[in-house]
Amino acid sequence: MNKINSKNLIWVPWMRRALQLASLGEGETSPNPLVGAVVLDKEGHILGEGFHSRAGSPHAEIEAFAQAGNNAKGGTLIVTLEPCCHHGLTPPCTEAILKSQVQRVVVASNDPDKRVAGKGISTLKKAGLEVINGILKKEADYQNRAFRFRVKTGRPWGVLKWAMSLDGRTSLSNGESKWISSSKAREYVHQMRANSDAVIVGGGTVRMDDPLLTSRGIANSEPLRVVFTKSLNLPQQAKLWDTSVASTFIAYSSIAERNHLYQFPDGPKRIVLNKSEPIELLEALALKGCNRVLWECGPRLSSAAISSGCVQELAVVISPKLLGGEPFGTPLASLGFKSMEEVLLLNQVLLKRIDQDWLMQMCIPQFQD
Amino acid sequence: MNKINSKNLIWVPWMRRALQLASLGEGETSPNPLVGAVVLDKEGHILGEGFHSRAGSPHAEIEAFAQAGNNAKGGTLIVTLEPCCHHGLTPPCTEAILKSQVQRVVVASNDPDKRVAGKGISTLKKAGLEVINGILKKEADYQNRAFRFRVKTGRPWGVLKWAMSLDGRTSLSNGESKWISSSKAREYVHQMRANSDAVIVGGGTVRMDDPLLTSRGIANSEPLRVVFTKSLNLPQQAKLWDTSVASTFIAYSSIAERNHLYQFPDGPKRIVLNKSEPIELLEALALKGCNRVLWECGPRLSSAAISSGCVQELAVVISPKLLGGEPFGTPLASLGFKSMEEVLLLNQVLLKRIDQDWLMQMCIPQFQD
Repeated sequence: MNKINSKNLIWVPWMRRALQLASLGEGETSPNPLVGAVVLDKEGHILGEGFHSRAGSPHAEIEAFAQAGNNAKGGTLIVTLEPCCHHGLTPPCTEAILKSQVQRVVVASNDPDKRVAGKGISTLKKAGLEVINGILKKEADYQNRAFRFRVKTGRPWGVLKWAMSLDGRTSLSNGESKWISSSKAREYVHQMRANSDAVIVGGGTVRMDDPLLTSRGIANSEPLRVVFTKSLNLPQQAKLWDTSVASTFIAYSSIAERNHLYQFPDGPKRIVLNKSEPIELLEALALKGCNRVLWECGPRLSSAAISSGCVQELAVVISPKLLGGEPFGTPLASLGFKSMEEVLLLNQVLLKRIDQDWLMQMCIPQFQD
Repeated sequence: MNKINSKNLIWVPWMRRALQLASLGEGETSPNPLVGAVVLDKEGHILGEGFHSRAGSPHAEIEAFAQAGNNAKGGTLIVTLEPCCHHGLTPPCTEAILKSQVQRVVVASNDPDKRVAGKGISTLKKAGLEVINGILKKEADYQNRAFRFRVKTGRPWGVLKWAMSLDGRTSLSNGESKWISSSKAREYVHQMRANSDAVIVGGGTVRMDDPLLTSRGIANSEPLRVVFTKSLNLPQQAKLWDTSVASTFIAYSSIAERNHLYQFPDGPKRIVLNKSEPIELLEALALKGCNRVLWECGPRLSSAAISSGCVQELAVVISPKLLGGEPFGTPLASLGFKSMEEVLLLNQVLLKRIDQDWLMQMCIPQFQD
């Protein structure tokens, strides 16, 4: 945690509220960041709150001032990100702040966008306002890690998700994988999709699982569904080709197109890549406004994504079951199971953190007579 | 939790203390159970405490009475297991209880041993004592799960332990596995060994890792070290053959002996099995007084032990690392790593229980620029 001057501690609870407001836009604001704002009058009473709800809609500060009305004079604006000072889809927030006549602006963190990058704060200071920066900076930067990473690198923040059994298995030897995790855990994955701007699978996952890849209605706008294929070996029929529920993109290399006669389905749009590397795909998705992508793919594409630096975060669901399988550097060899009904279910006994590791202790109730 | 008559709730804190005392004997009492006891005077003040420290030593009740002296008359004995009523290595506890002239005995759970099995309690009742049974029964039965299982089935309680990375890998593709877990986690494994009566590995683990398998001095008596081999293909030199620190047993089938000319090392003792099945080995170890064994073996023997019902509990250390490997129903394929120095280290972000599953969310700091 960054050190906060003790006289500035009074802003911490308000900034926490502003961060909470910012989180309401999760999954909807890209390519913009999450931002929340609170306006106080000169006695420190709350006048208004706001958050950025989607690109093109008013910024958080503007929402909060609209609620505050004409009573902000001499008051304080608390905002999770440095106010913008440029004309984008909406006018500069610095203008609205000066017009409101607040005397103080409390900010969590700088905006890394080159059009702002400190200029928002210096504009306010030059106009004579008190600016306090760095309140809950770490929390704010974590909340906007996807936006900040995309601005810095030109690529969206990559999250790789998988579900596995306690013995590290994502499927039985015959390929069966429905379902390893509980329905509640799968609902949580729908929420993760809603918080993402795109969901990426490989061709193998389309052939094997025929997934839908939507948030099941949780998101206001469903994430882009992206099939990343080197071979263009894709089925003619697939749930993803129905783009009435959400957009689908098929990303492939120009080489694949030349080598394969492929009857493209009607719904999906094309992303033609040069070398068909994960990094190329992510650069293309950043240009489509993606801050955060969710990788939901098989082992080979997952490893390629990791190795090329396209994964920044992992979300691993560990299910208290034993599946067994081929013994290649894995805890268990085959247990001879042919369907998910046969796998061993475990009872949790203990979960314990030991240094940086986790200890999971479980019982096999089937073998306790 | 079993229902307790509200007037008996006053015994719960004393029974909790008795369970705590019992746990002091962990790993040392086999083939006997863990037992703790507290003696109160007739006003309910504590007079004495005791626990069973090893087979052949006084039972918990006797220890507690010795501390209580002559003031137990009219008082209460709280004990985690039904007192014995037979002559074993020590005289029956029921005799000592009657001699102490306590008026009440509070018990957590019945002794499943056929020589007791309710007869201890009925002896006390017949002599006119008040006996209250079932206080913290579930906790007491869990504490003595290994003893109870061995009495019921004739086989020790099996615990299977492994350490793996977040992607479910126990080694790199080249076999390197030192070390996946932290040194603190490995110390915890030493503690697990100390709480076990025997540690079992396969021949492959001896050839590959040359392990020591001791508790590193934590245990008063080191667990038996057992090599379970079908082939008798064992190295001439191995740390396990030095039996000055702890006993070693080599368990193999009579067939293997006929087929192989094997120069047996001097230190280890032999366990000759018929068919060399895990269950046969465990029956042999039960006869050697083992209540609890720890399986520390490779994938094939682990799966065989599970499939034959020789594993009742799992202890899995999950280390926040990515190793990668062959893609066989595993979350990741190769990441091309050749040594433990190269593997990806992760930062924990979130651990969350979702229904019966666990969600682990981690970041790859190396790829965040």
